[in-house]
Amino acid sequence: MALIVQKYGGTSVGSVERIQNVARRIAKFKSQGHDLVVVVSAMSGETNRLVALANDVSGGNPNPREMDVVLSTGEQVTIGLLAMALDAIGVPAKSYTGWQVAVKTDSAHTKARIETIDDAAMRADLKDGKVVIVAGFQGIDGVGDITTLGRGGSDTSAVALAAALKADECQIYTDVDGVYTTDPRIVPEARRLDKITFEEMLELASLGSKVLQIRSVEFAGKYRVRLRVLSSLEEDGGGGTLITFEEDEQMERVQVSGIACDKNQARINVRGVPDKPGIAFQILGAVADANIEVDMIIQNVGAEGTTDFSFTVPRGDYNNALKILNEVKEKIGAAEVSGDDTVAKVSIVGAGMRSHVGTASTMFRALAEEGINIQMISTSEIKVSVLIAEKYTELATRVLHAAFGLEKA
Amino acid sequence: MALIVQKYGGTSVGSVERIQNVARRIAKFKSQGHDLVVVVSAMSGETNRLVALANDVSGGNPNPREMDVVLSTGEQVTIGLLAMALDAIGVPAKSYTGWQVAVKTDSAHTKARIETIDDAAMRADLKDGKVVIVAGFQGIDGVGDITTLGRGGSDTSAVALAAALKADECQIYTDVDGVYTTDPRIVPEARRLDKITFEEMLELASLGSKVLQIRSVEFAGKYRVRLRVLSSLEEDGGGGTLITFEEDEQMERVQVSGIACDKNQARINVRGVPDKPGIAFQILGAVADANIEVDMIIQNVGAEGTTDFSFTVPRGDYNNALKILNEVKEKIGAAEVSGDDTVAKVSIVGAGMRSHVGTASTMFRALAEEGINIQMISTSEIKVSVLIAEKYTELATRVLHAAFGLEKA
Repeated sequence: MALIVQKYGGTSVGSVERIQNVARRIAKFKSQGHDLVVVVSAMSGETNRLVALANDVSGGNPNPREMDVVLSTGEQVTIGLLAMALDAIGVPAKSYTGWQVAVKTDSAHTKARIETIDDAAMRADLKDGKVVIVAGFQGIDGVGDITTLGRGGSDTSAVALAAALKADECQIYTDVDGVYTTDPRIVPEARRLDKITFEEMLELASLGSKVLQIRSVEFAGKYRVRLRVLSSLEEDGGGGTLITFEEDEQMERVQVSGIACDKNQARINVRGVPDKPGIAFQILGAVADANIEVDMIIQNVGAEGTTDFSFTVPRGDYNNALKILNEVKEKIGAAEVSGDDTVAKVSIVGAGMRSHVGTASTMFRALAEEGINIQMISTSEIKVSVLIAEKYTELATRVLHAAFGLEKA
Repeated sequence: MALIVQKYGGTSVGSVERIQNVARRIAKFKSQGHDLVVVVSAMSGETNRLVALANDVSGGNPNPREMDVVLSTGEQVTIGLLAMALDAIGVPAKSYTGWQVAVKTDSAHTKARIETIDDAAMRADLKDGKVVIVAGFQGIDGVGDITTLGRGGSDTSAVALAAALKADECQIYTDVDGVYTTDPRIVPEARRLDKITFEEMLELASLGSKVLQIRSVEFAGKYRVRLRVLSSLEEDGGGGTLITFEEDEQMERVQVSGIACDKNQARINVRGVPDKPGIAFQILGAVADANIEVDMIIQNVGAEGTTDFSFTVPRGDYNNALKILNEVKEKIGAAEVSGDDTVAKVSIVGAGMRSHVGTASTMFRALAEEGINIQMISTSEIKVSVLIAEKYTELATRVLHAAFGLEKA
């Protein structure tokens, strides 16, 4: 008998039939003697419908406080419907909006951060044998206004509730059955991982693997919440992937756990900049002032006391970033500003890298054997990322998947 | 400069364009220097959509607490959208859900009654020059659960807010431009009344005139709220009808203010019942136990120490009522139980009746001249109702409209 927090996303509760399916799944867990707190999203399509109404009525510039009043109704409908569906099959349940819990947040409307969660009422209901249903994605700020946590915020709600309740496990049900060694659409041999460390998950989440929202993973890490990703489409959840904190023995033997690729990349090169202190700030400061996020950064010694500087930005910001740098080119005395928006980032991630030498060289050799040129390299303790031409993305992913033997359990 | 509470129904806020229209109307009132509290319903169709979802997911028997969680989202979407629309045209506005106000109610889910309203936050916003937007139809009970007031409850919300704020006027905007002497679809000469007394309005509302929800009229009477019905479709509200408390001189001269007709009637006759004390209770008690509402009741002396008993019920309850009485027929020793569900009730209403004799006889003569047989009569201080064959409903209404000269201002 355990206290489990489960989260069901918009697709899992996207119709009356699917809500009834979720209710039956909950009933099964309940009959096994578990205490359950269930977090749900808005029915799929509902948030987009509400956003469209808000944009239409406000000429595309909705007041953020009122946006949250409107958006939070999506999850409120789902909690009521799921509680009814449970009630109808004889499982006592009670729904809570964000303010009813209360999930206290700051006042940053449409992207609020959770500050505290009051668990008293939920605990009393659990003690009474009730299933507690909580609206994800929403909270209440210090002055009693409704707030929302931003897209994907329901994952964060679930992890935060699990932390507040000191739950034994937080289960995130999605339309995939876990975390894979890489995208199965690119590599058919991709294998579901039974376990992955929290750090690896964080690297994979931030590298474009869209299984879990990155904020929820950070939150789980901070509060040491045992997190599991499962399929809402398969009867037993498909086994799922557990995100652990300890690297167990088996894990230490694995160099690389997964491969992520990200096509939302564009490269900017600034060549022939006089090599003096503060030059990185002068270049990147101008980009940061325009709210453009910079990912990989490389500085290299160039010819005759100059330096070459390269970095990547999200593809949608490419033209703007080029424009800004052409404007500051004179000021920083750069010889040339150029770029390429047909690049992609491919990364290998693995906690086992720490204790293995040669992981990076295995990667580079595998790519070289296919004639794939590496444009930029960046590394962290458990990750190596390379920037390559976009057209090689799938090939590189397949080659690396094979090179590290990821198809084998 | 006045404090005005305005209420806009579902049709008035049924689309993005209509919400923007309402915003412009509010902006105009605001520019005239008025303080405004605006109560809105769910967008038309939304409540029905939510009810259907709830019925589907629960097999037709939704848990009432959860029903209110789901239903209350309809109005919550509208308050957010209207506040955004005002914000977008430069009118500062702030939305309030029922619990944010707070509108405190009892715990009778789906048909809760308002107990208290906290006006502090609204007053502070009005002082700041903001338009206050409040979700109608909803409140919060003593344990923090969301409640709703039942269909048409937004009218009641508006009147209750006007009472709490001691507003100068409560304006109900609907798709008609006021209260008419009778249904203009039946009598083309029907005339809009500039004024009507609260008592007359109450009689008309309960007699099937669907302009205002009866509970809101009762509430207005109890707290002496100055109430006006206006059109949301016409630029100036179409003049509207003011519901007053004093019968002014001009009113005393008018015998009859309006004529209401109600086809949702069925008649039950119980003939040849032994005439002894408690017989009415024995007959009506059985009907009341089945939650059937009884409207007109008549008891007459019958043949040889027996009595004849007649009453009307809503047409939908006719078959059930007949069945019940056939079951208790033996027990009460009645000779015969019969009925007719092709009847209608036509009523004349007027505060001026009090000081006029002969109002009823004018009515009966007008009907007799057209050969319309009266099956039952019931009267109150300011009303005379007759039950007639349904087929004569329109004819009777036209004849009475002319007999009392209602087409003349």
